[in-house]
Amino acid sequence: MEKTKRFLLSEKEIPEQWYNIVPDMKNKPMPILHPGTKQALKPEDLYPIFAEAVADQELNQTDRWIAIPSEVRDQYKHYRATPLVRAYSLEKALDTPAHIYFKNESVSPVGSHKLNSALAQAYYCKQEGLTHITTETGAGQWGTALSYATKAFGLDLTVYMVKISYEQKPYRRSLMQTWGAKVIPSPSNTTKAGQKTLSETPDYQGSLGTAISEAIEVAMQTPNCKYTLGSVLNHVTLHQTIIGLEAEKQMALAGEYPDIVIGCFGGGSNFGGLSFPFLRHTLTEGRKTRFITAEPASCPKLTRGIFQYDFGDEAGYTPLLPMFTLGHTFTPANIHAGGLRYHGAGTIVSQLLKDGLVEAVDIRQLDSFTAGVLFAQTEGIVPAPESAHAIAATINEALKAKEEGTPKTILFNLSGHGLIDMSAYEQYLSGKLQNYALSDEDIAKNTDKLEKII
Amino acid sequence: MEKTKRFLLSEKEIPEQWYNIVPDMKNKPMPILHPGTKQALKPEDLYPIFAEAVADQELNQTDRWIAIPSEVRDQYKHYRATPLVRAYSLEKALDTPAHIYFKNESVSPVGSHKLNSALAQAYYCKQEGLTHITTETGAGQWGTALSYATKAFGLDLTVYMVKISYEQKPYRRSLMQTWGAKVIPSPSNTTKAGQKTLSETPDYQGSLGTAISEAIEVAMQTPNCKYTLGSVLNHVTLHQTIIGLEAEKQMALAGEYPDIVIGCFGGGSNFGGLSFPFLRHTLTEGRKTRFITAEPASCPKLTRGIFQYDFGDEAGYTPLLPMFTLGHTFTPANIHAGGLRYHGAGTIVSQLLKDGLVEAVDIRQLDSFTAGVLFAQTEGIVPAPESAHAIAATINEALKAKEEGTPKTILFNLSGHGLIDMSAYEQYLSGKLQNYALSDEDIAKNTDKLEKII
Repeated sequence: MEKTKRFLLSEKEIPEQWYNIVPDMKNKPMPILHPGTKQALKPEDLYPIFAEAVADQELNQTDRWIAIPSEVRDQYKHYRATPLVRAYSLEKALDTPAHIYFKNESVSPVGSHKLNSALAQAYYCKQEGLTHITTETGAGQWGTALSYATKAFGLDLTVYMVKISYEQKPYRRSLMQTWGAKVIPSPSNTTKAGQKTLSETPDYQGSLGTAISEAIEVAMQTPNCKYTLGSVLNHVTLHQTIIGLEAEKQMALAGEYPDIVIGCFGGGSNFGGLSFPFLRHTLTEGRKTRFITAEPASCPKLTRGIFQYDFGDEAGYTPLLPMFTLGHTFTPANIHAGGLRYHGAGTIVSQLLKDGLVEAVDIRQLDSFTAGVLFAQTEGIVPAPESAHAIAATINEALKAKEEGTPKTILFNLSGHGLIDMSAYEQYLSGKLQNYALSDEDIAKNTDKLEKII
Repeated sequence: MEKTKRFLLSEKEIPEQWYNIVPDMKNKPMPILHPGTKQALKPEDLYPIFAEAVADQELNQTDRWIAIPSEVRDQYKHYRATPLVRAYSLEKALDTPAHIYFKNESVSPVGSHKLNSALAQAYYCKQEGLTHITTETGAGQWGTALSYATKAFGLDLTVYMVKISYEQKPYRRSLMQTWGAKVIPSPSNTTKAGQKTLSETPDYQGSLGTAISEAIEVAMQTPNCKYTLGSVLNHVTLHQTIIGLEAEKQMALAGEYPDIVIGCFGGGSNFGGLSFPFLRHTLTEGRKTRFITAEPASCPKLTRGIFQYDFGDEAGYTPLLPMFTLGHTFTPANIHAGGLRYHGAGTIVSQLLKDGLVEAVDIRQLDSFTAGVLFAQTEGIVPAPESAHAIAATINEALKAKEEGTPKTILFNLSGHGLIDMSAYEQYLSGKLQNYALSDEDIAKNTDKLEKII
């Protein structure tokens, strides 16, 4: 009998609802606090910045299922359902009894899972009567996805792109421009925040913190304009659950259920997107599954950070979030997995880790690329440096299964491809990449600065 | 009722045979000739250079269907069947009554259709007991695909990459290296041909002609090693018919049959791959369908070239091929659609054009990018500069249908994505790209040099 390699769904089988895990959590995430009053935030507090629909979703603790608007679902049809793939060649190379599956989000036209939330957020802004959106982007994955999404829904977009990335990642910048976005290197002279930074440090290469301030400032001052964010927050992960809901149907087609679910970890939306739909069976039916986050060893908030209230951004403009964090002043090493260079974890995953429902492992940069190259040479797809962390963790589990002689079913998320990150592979192949060690003191000096609220 | 956007096939529906159009052609292509004796070539004459199986396929005029080896079909399952997509958003933007479909070959892990033949050629080399393959690559699409394929079948690969591309296209070079290929900038000191060129012109930036000579020289001198080619030849187009055979099934799912089939045109394998399976119904049942090649206006072999015997390579090492050509000494302008910068057309398409079964249009560089950007902004996928030529021709036909008020069904091949060609889009968006005019004298001075055999 022929073995099936890729498990596909028809357009009719694309899920019609996203899954909100919070109603199923015994211990809810602690509230998000206003930094001045320390009072729990209400949706209305977020309305000036975010589309009202996503502000409501952000704090929704009661509705397990949220309908996907048909306009968003129609847009999903451009690339969804994405394939679930059995990694036979990787299994063979590892000589493991484990069955390895991956959800292939790299087939999205922007090359990553980010589009799943970008389309939803652009739609809600449009529905609210807005005409503009602002956002910031570092490596450019989120800005790229939002450029695509705003073009699809007929909105104008201004992206503040961290200046060093603007210069070093011209391909992603050009992608955004091809989809019609205005891309401004940050810091810029177009905002007060940018002007202030430039007057103090004219040669400043930019940071996500500055770019966030610029994007929010413009959103607040422009009529019919709001701001959007591509990770960390609950509504972003909500939109990403389309990944896991599809995967659940596809694993059923394969006649299997995962023993282990793995995702790389930056802010948490790709990990949560794949894992929460499976985690719901653990929460509601006691199904035994391990959920593993794979973070970079150079940015180990889940394995070595502390659980505390902290700001979501470097500059301290956002509300206070209860999360595992390295401190918002922590500056991660300049690894190529730019999407994982974030100091904190989303509030839901933080609570789940605290409650022992989720595990965390860290992966060193060189190990992530070794895994990425093995994956490219077996399964054929060059993974994004971020996704390579999930692959490294998968390989570790598959080798453990071999050692123990236990056949395990492992599912991981291939969150994106690495075709626009080939310079990183070039550096790895020519021996120019390194690992970054981080001492306990390095971590403590940032976390010690946090106000002790919990 | 929900409209279907993407028409998918299950793995079981991936075709089990390629289609050889020659048995159905009333006028067969004229024979390929030995350049010295002017005698028709036999398969054995090609054995020293090409795998025997593909040499046999090259000259096969009798077998309409060629079985796809199950090992190749298993490899196809990594990305096939590729989707057939209805371009609703593009139709809407054009306000056309035409139904526009495209076959999306960009979803292959190497980003283009080239992999369809690379896998087949690598397999046949492996089956013959070879351990090495050589090839040349210009822009890098073919080299990339063959790197993937040789890794899949456990062969060593040496790619001679035109030096200027080696330096200007580091992403494609790194892709090849990630899949384990040895990539050498050509001209190089590793061959006599390269040494000769370098001794005459030390700063020479390389050409496809020199790279071919180097790759063939190494193949001839290395035990268990042969040479492969990624376009122009009949066996390459044969392997690419998987595209059209799938599309035929998918158009049936959509309940339509194309009035017009369009492909961009370099050597002919992507155009032939999509169109020949449909053309067979024209040849055998008299079905009325138009088949349109879209070539760059700066390399107009089909619209302005002559039909004559000519060499396949710049240097004149290959056998003589009966084809539409601009002369093998013609140097195309440096357009970004590197895969279309070839002086001649494959022998089958040349015969079909001569017989009026195929039409040819030319597309100017700026028009191709205008079409590419419109496609990116409507259908979401940034097309390869090559594929943008097919899109431009499609838009022209869709607008004609609008003018005439006739609903036409148009099918084109999206042969690849442009994610690794974003610098070209950047140049277009910033107004730095140009068209290249070509006078009749420019063409005549190369074609006049050809020996008049026909």
